[in-house]
Amino acid sequence: MKKYDNSQSRRKFIHQTAISGVGLMLLNPNYLFATQNTNGMSNNIPSKGYAGKDEKGKLVLWNFERRPVGDHDLLIEIKFSGICHSDIHTIKGHWTKQQYPQIPGHEIAGIVTAVGKNVSKFKVGDKAGVGCMVNSCMKCDSCKNGDENHCETTGMVGTYGAPEKSSPTGITQGGYANNIVVTEHFAIKIPSNMDLQFAAPLLCAGITTYSPMMKIKVKKGDKVGVVGIGGLGHLAIKLAVSKGAEVYAFTTSPSKVNDSKGFGAKEVIVVDSSEKLKPWFGKMDYMISTIPYAYDVSSYLSCVKPNGSFTQVGIPINGELTINTFDMISNRVNFNGSLIGGIPETQEVIDYCAKNKIYPQIQIIKAEKINEAWEKVVNKEARYRYVIDAATI
Amino acid sequence: MKKYDNSQSRRKFIHQTAISGVGLMLLNPNYLFATQNTNGMSNNIPSKGYAGKDEKGKLVLWNFERRPVGDHDLLIEIKFSGICHSDIHTIKGHWTKQQYPQIPGHEIAGIVTAVGKNVSKFKVGDKAGVGCMVNSCMKCDSCKNGDENHCETTGMVGTYGAPEKSSPTGITQGGYANNIVVTEHFAIKIPSNMDLQFAAPLLCAGITTYSPMMKIKVKKGDKVGVVGIGGLGHLAIKLAVSKGAEVYAFTTSPSKVNDSKGFGAKEVIVVDSSEKLKPWFGKMDYMISTIPYAYDVSSYLSCVKPNGSFTQVGIPINGELTINTFDMISNRVNFNGSLIGGIPETQEVIDYCAKNKIYPQIQIIKAEKINEAWEKVVNKEARYRYVIDAATI
Ligand SMILES: [Zn+2]
Ligand SMILES: [Zn+2]
Ligand SMILES: [Zn+2]
Ligand SMILES: [Zn+2]
Repeated sequence: MKKYDNSQSRRKFIHQTAISGVGLMLLNPNYLFATQNTNGMSNNIPSKGYAGKDEKGKLVLWNFERRPVGDHDLLIEIKFSGICHSDIHTIKGHWTKQQYPQIPGHEIAGIVTAVGKNVSKFKVGDKAGVGCMVNSCMKCDSCKNGDENHCETTGMVGTYGAPEKSSPTGITQGGYANNIVVTEHFAIKIPSNMDLQFAAPLLCAGITTYSPMMKIKVKKGDKVGVVGIGGLGHLAIKLAVSKGAEVYAFTTSPSKVNDSKGFGAKEVIVVDSSEKLKPWFGKMDYMISTIPYAYDVSSYLSCVKPNGSFTQVGIPINGELTINTFDMISNRVNFNGSLIGGIPETQEVIDYCAKNKIYPQIQIIKAEKINEAWEKVVNKEARYRYVIDAATI
Repeated sequence: MKKYDNSQSRRKFIHQTAISGVGLMLLNPNYLFATQNTNGMSNNIPSKGYAGKDEKGKLVLWNFERRPVGDHDLLIEIKFSGICHSDIHTIKGHWTKQQYPQIPGHEIAGIVTAVGKNVSKFKVGDKAGVGCMVNSCMKCDSCKNGDENHCETTGMVGTYGAPEKSSPTGITQGGYANNIVVTEHFAIKIPSNMDLQFAAPLLCAGITTYSPMMKIKVKKGDKVGVVGIGGLGHLAIKLAVSKGAEVYAFTTSPSKVNDSKGFGAKEVIVVDSSEKLKPWFGKMDYMISTIPYAYDVSSYLSCVKPNGSFTQVGIPINGELTINTFDMISNRVNFNGSLIGGIPETQEVIDYCAKNKIYPQIQIIKAEKINEAWEKVVNKEARYRYVIDAATI
């Protein structure tokens, strides 16, 4: 086991042989020592990953540096990294202006290769994951309540693109990379019986759909509508089915009908026009929409029973969705949004999925295929989550 | 008391002297008999009112006919009729294409001057009101539950502009008129201790704000935000205050600050820019917005505490409101709409206001000033509800 002591007062360095599995100890010991040096050399950790260089959103291999492993930090050797539609929106500047180069990726699963001296939850060799955030104030009520995603002071620090003083590049850099340094609190323990490639997509797609369904208490017999059957939607189906709900999948892709039934959907509605929704008006107890583009949300809203809830988790370009107030006053539906989930709940969904053997449907790709995969995601051709094999970076 | 028997089988006509107050018996007896005639003469009731002739929305005096008083119908001599912003939107075709001539007005208060033979709830001389609807299927679950406003089959039949076979003009005609014929079920009993001019605005502005606040169970100590302090908003303040809530009024008009405090608001926020809302983010238990135009709803939504509710009752042109999904996922607020209220609840709010002496702030105008009043409503100059003195029509 390795422990870094990065404190100013005592720079003792504990170096133990890692009693860990295959391929964990790839770090050069000199490099590890470098984090402790006082001779003017950089303490930063050399890293490589696929970065966007501008809003065109074409990713290229880029060598960069991570911050040194601090006392509360883990160094994770990334094994798998999921491709989320948010990665594309962010890098292409669809939501806000971005700083480049920027490495996206917030569905990160790997193996701990080093730990700071104050780390208690992880040891070298553990499976660990990183989701959509890598920090928050940890002092406000939301943070103390495990709602770090709703930190009231600094806001959550996103896994990529967020200004971060400690990062040599000035912003956080995400998971399409060979490693990541993260403060222990924001790392998720991946159960040993869960394969890393399946764990990765749970860290965004999983928690994002799990959290609102837990809040609304989806239960046996509920009619749950899932709108948009992609990376998030297919997990929403599986999670709702696992809770005993009757799930209705709404998709624009006829080719997803059989898959959706395979995920457990009771019925699949191919919505090639809003007319197709009319028979479903007022039928669902709850709906969740993962569509990350502007769409006719009002017609879907009307599929919920009066006084039911509809959660939007997909975020369109510019974030704007136009609501029809006439529909809203008639359908009496509560429209809300949900932003991933806090760290305790992210741990919960991973543990829940491991226990109940709920795995995302993934396609593992080589890093050189990332740009191709992005195009397929945009064209709704992903079936259902691309996961990058980080060994190919 | 007068009772009409309009049935096909037995056309007996009960004509009793009305034991009623001043000015009730203005109807010409010949005219009353006309509804029973079988000699080819029209049974229709001559009426006059202020109608829009096209989308320009200029109202002019118009002579037209109402349907005869049916067995379940009342004839009401209108005394006062409130001006609602919806009247303007409707006649100007802001929401949907309209048929003209059309008389708006759905805040109607008057005196019963004739009743059909099966009418049991009203007698000649009673104070009676008509709100936003005059019919529905009366058979579906919603109608049976007193949610006629959400009738599942025909939908509610609006007080003006709705296709109606029995109406000689082919559509329902509203309350800017000297009389109205309405089926008993859709007439509201106005308590004898409530002045008709105060009752009128309660039939739309009152119930529209009362219903969602009752649904959300606004209670003592709740922080309630009211957005838009006009005809609806000022009643929302009074109603919420009467339930013991701490009310925060949000207005764009500095001139409404003192009035709003007079209505009972604890604090008034003059929102001359969305920046003014920031100190209020996450502070309200509940908010209701009466703004009938497109506006930055997302900033207001953020003023509600996480998991709280925000109800939109004002309907903008085309009904469209653009929501910022980023705000929605962060603020965790339930956004919903509300459409007036059912007949039992409309009766409830009238009784509640009569009992608790909650009266709208009105300005009584002559009919010839209607067009001027409309301009003032659009320019936010109404203080706070114009009520037409129907005797001047
Ligand atoms: Zn994501
Ligand atoms: Zn915080
Ligand atoms: Zn109205
Ligand atoms: Zn009905």
